[in-house]
Amino acid sequence: MERTERAVRHFQEELEALQARLLEMGGLAEEHVRVAIQGLVTRDPAAVERILRGDEPINELHIEIDNRCFTLLALHQPMATDLRAIVAAVKINTDLERVGDLAVNIAEAARHYVTHPPVKKLIDIPQMGDIAQAMLRDALDSFVHRDTELAQHVLDEDDRLDGLKTQVFRELLTYMLHDPSTVEPALDLILISRHLERIGDHATNIAEDVIFMVSARDVRHHAPGA
Amino acid sequence: MERTERAVRHFQEELEALQARLLEMGGLAEEHVRVAIQGLVTRDPAAVERILRGDEPINELHIEIDNRCFTLLALHQPMATDLRAIVAAVKINTDLERVGDLAVNIAEAARHYVTHPPVKKLIDIPQMGDIAQAMLRDALDSFVHRDTELAQHVLDEDDRLDGLKTQVFRELLTYMLHDPSTVEPALDLILISRHLERIGDHATNIAEDVIFMVSARDVRHHAPGA
Repeated sequence: MERTERAVRHFQEELEALQARLLEMGGLAEEHVRVAIQGLVTRDPAAVERILRGDEPINELHIEIDNRCFTLLALHQPMATDLRAIVAAVKINTDLERVGDLAVNIAEAARHYVTHPPVKKLIDIPQMGDIAQAMLRDALDSFVHRDTELAQHVLDEDDRLDGLKTQVFRELLTYMLHDPSTVEPALDLILISRHLERIGDHATNIAEDVIFMVSARDVRHHAPGA
Repeated sequence: MERTERAVRHFQEELEALQARLLEMGGLAEEHVRVAIQGLVTRDPAAVERILRGDEPINELHIEIDNRCFTLLALHQPMATDLRAIVAAVKINTDLERVGDLAVNIAEAARHYVTHPPVKKLIDIPQMGDIAQAMLRDALDSFVHRDTELAQHVLDEDDRLDGLKTQVFRELLTYMLHDPSTVEPALDLILISRHLERIGDHATNIAEDVIFMVSARDVRHHAPGA
């Protein structure tokens, strides 16, 4: 099959459309995390319910993006960089879909949390939410712009998120040990902090795929800078 | 490029080698889960340490399999079924690598758990471990044999795993509410049961990919039988 100029242009357009849909999916996933955490902090059942019931658009996009990747691979048989970009898109799509699931998990824990008196003023968890959302945004931007520096920044932020998770855990454990009435709601918060940590892990996966895709250097399974 | 008979045979050999490596990786991941749970149940620090330090082979296989997938896609430009199989392999590889990470997470919680007196005799968690391991094994078998019935069985087993997780949570919560000295070790067990649930989720992802690959029917985001 001869690859005409027109076919090449068509392929590039399809690749850009794929990236646009991935960004849209990322925006949706990030928004769901934001609303779930907001529902937790403001104790707003309507916001929580919106996330619990609203994962249909993310799931539809997930299937559409997967199909786009298959079509691009099957019809255009891309080589080298383009091939890496599409395989990365398949993986990123999976990561974003799981982030949508985690937003639902956060909303489930939040729904239970607000049935108890607040354990404490929430400071670290919203901060974890902000970091996780920024990591997602940066990871996707690093994909679109093939920006390995930004991808590396995402990897660094993951350490900050893990540090906060440990801090949240220790603090809540103290509450639980001293006051049994806090056990149930504190457990909800611990689980929410773990869900946020996992969202950071998904952003990290995306950033690692970007670094691999751009530099064909495998940063996975190595400490940063190693 | 004309595809000679020899090229086709070479491709099939490479595809089989890829599957063999995936099975090896699955076997390793399953083994790590088994040893981590065994270390927890028998309170065996050596078993736990073995898992905490031993994820190098899984990580190396992860990179090797990823590279094999890229090579197959780039050199052979497969179509239709073969293309779906290789894209499925990319995803399955990612799932198995995360299972390896979860075995480490289980071992971390187990290391902490055994520093406290046992909360209770462990029955449900080893059972969850058995189910999760069987799900992984069946999911990979369903991939190799293109067996959608077995894949569907994996999806059904996931409900059983989720049910056990809920049961474990309720029981441990009761301990925590009545005896603050159980709060810390019970938290470890709750986290371990969540890690096992996530291993089941990865097996479920694999099974869904197999059903999609074989029947080009998308079972993702739908209730079984819907």
